[in-house]
Amino acid sequence: MRKAIGIFDSGLGGLTVLKVLAQRFPNESFCYLGDIARLPYGNKSPETIRRYGLQILAFLKNQNVKAIIIACNSASTVFLGEKEFEGIPLLNVIEPGAAAALAVTTDDKIAVLGTSATIRSHAYRDTLKSMAPGVEVIEQACPLLVPLVEEGMVDDTITEQIARRYLSEIKSKNFSTVILGCTHYPVIKTDLIKVLGEDVKLVESGDALADELKALYQDNILIPDVGTRQIRVCITDLTDHFERLAHKLMFPEPITDLERVVL
Amino acid sequence: MRKAIGIFDSGLGGLTVLKVLAQRFPNESFCYLGDIARLPYGNKSPETIRRYGLQILAFLKNQNVKAIIIACNSASTVFLGEKEFEGIPLLNVIEPGAAAALAVTTDDKIAVLGTSATIRSHAYRDTLKSMAPGVEVIEQACPLLVPLVEEGMVDDTITEQIARRYLSEIKSKNFSTVILGCTHYPVIKTDLIKVLGEDVKLVESGDALADELKALYQDNILIPDVGTRQIRVCITDLTDHFERLAHKLMFPEPITDLERVVL
Repeated sequence: MRKAIGIFDSGLGGLTVLKVLAQRFPNESFCYLGDIARLPYGNKSPETIRRYGLQILAFLKNQNVKAIIIACNSASTVFLGEKEFEGIPLLNVIEPGAAAALAVTTDDKIAVLGTSATIRSHAYRDTLKSMAPGVEVIEQACPLLVPLVEEGMVDDTITEQIARRYLSEIKSKNFSTVILGCTHYPVIKTDLIKVLGEDVKLVESGDALADELKALYQDNILIPDVGTRQIRVCITDLTDHFERLAHKLMFPEPITDLERVVL
Repeated sequence: MRKAIGIFDSGLGGLTVLKVLAQRFPNESFCYLGDIARLPYGNKSPETIRRYGLQILAFLKNQNVKAIIIACNSASTVFLGEKEFEGIPLLNVIEPGAAAALAVTTDDKIAVLGTSATIRSHAYRDTLKSMAPGVEVIEQACPLLVPLVEEGMVDDTITEQIARRYLSEIKSKNFSTVILGCTHYPVIKTDLIKVLGEDVKLVESGDALADELKALYQDNILIPDVGTRQIRVCITDLTDHFERLAHKLMFPEPITDLERVVL
């Protein structure tokens, strides 16, 4: 019986993660859930985000998935340290992202950019410090970057100005490495590089998660899939706007259909 | 038995309406519901917005209100033309706003600014045309203005630039009157005036609704309240950020307590 890998996000930002995983694991099937009816999560409380997350985990379990990836950083912070959900291996983006940042930093100074919920939780800071107590962590909430990405304002002077406002103060700390602690941020990498400079290393969730997932196969916790794979993208609400955004974020990996589901 | 006036919005923007109503009706009690756990509504589908709206109407009915005001423009568009909910008078912002704009226009050219959901519905255009078939209506969605208000970017060069981008094209049509078709927009009136010019008349939901409500008392559909009034503000989620925003939007009308409720 075929078993897909489940993956969820508050909206469509997690498609940037799905895209990387779909390329790295070309034989695996995926079942994505984007909670568009209640997005964004980044400005909501931990209690509300956890309530929504548990509903989505139950939905994905019903789709008979073999593992679940919490692609949403804000949701990852409220499930930190939980390695399974009702017997299904559970992965979040925080730990792989922290490990990847520590692997590339040259000066033990790491900046974390994220939503208000992610930064307020200090999940990256605490995880980084538990892995490497001497590391210096600089945290910055960037709440307007998600709506800017959703409005398609990529490589845009206004996006650059807003990024500059968020980052001007912390830039003086001269960190070598930046964790893009939100699935939307890789989309505006060009704008962020203009502000941060070419030399700063940007750590993205997708690559870090792919390495973590690979380890689960190597440890025989997950069994590889065979045959023709399927990529399902389920959403809790649908508008023309999000449909266009979905195809844009996944390109060139095609989405054949957006399934609307009720949780 | 005391009966409050119910009022709801996707979030806290409707507090700009509550503030006006609380000043205009100093003896009336109000019960406000802000659906912070699922905000914003402006980028969601009509089906999802209506589902959320019906849950909130049921909640307010249970609070024993004597009338319900849909302060949210996006929600108003999906209840347009519905004059009651299970026997309780129901008011939306579209019709009073349209009537107020027609009362002040000097050239029969009215611009409507709103969320994607509000503009996509054409609710203002259709209502204006049904009241005054010869009127010219210019519609413009301004999706980023809500997050900018929620981030407190009031009287800010970035807000002005984003407003300029939305309005530069339609400005050439030289309209005399603009409907602020979203409860958040009165907060950034200064920024909008810088772009639109001092001479343009801005129509706000609060004032228009107050006139509509007054008519319900004059027609004896509503009975005035007596005694010490109470203003309840209920929300479906609570973070420090929204608590600060609530107090800022209501100032100088004090909020004694934010009640967290589950729908």
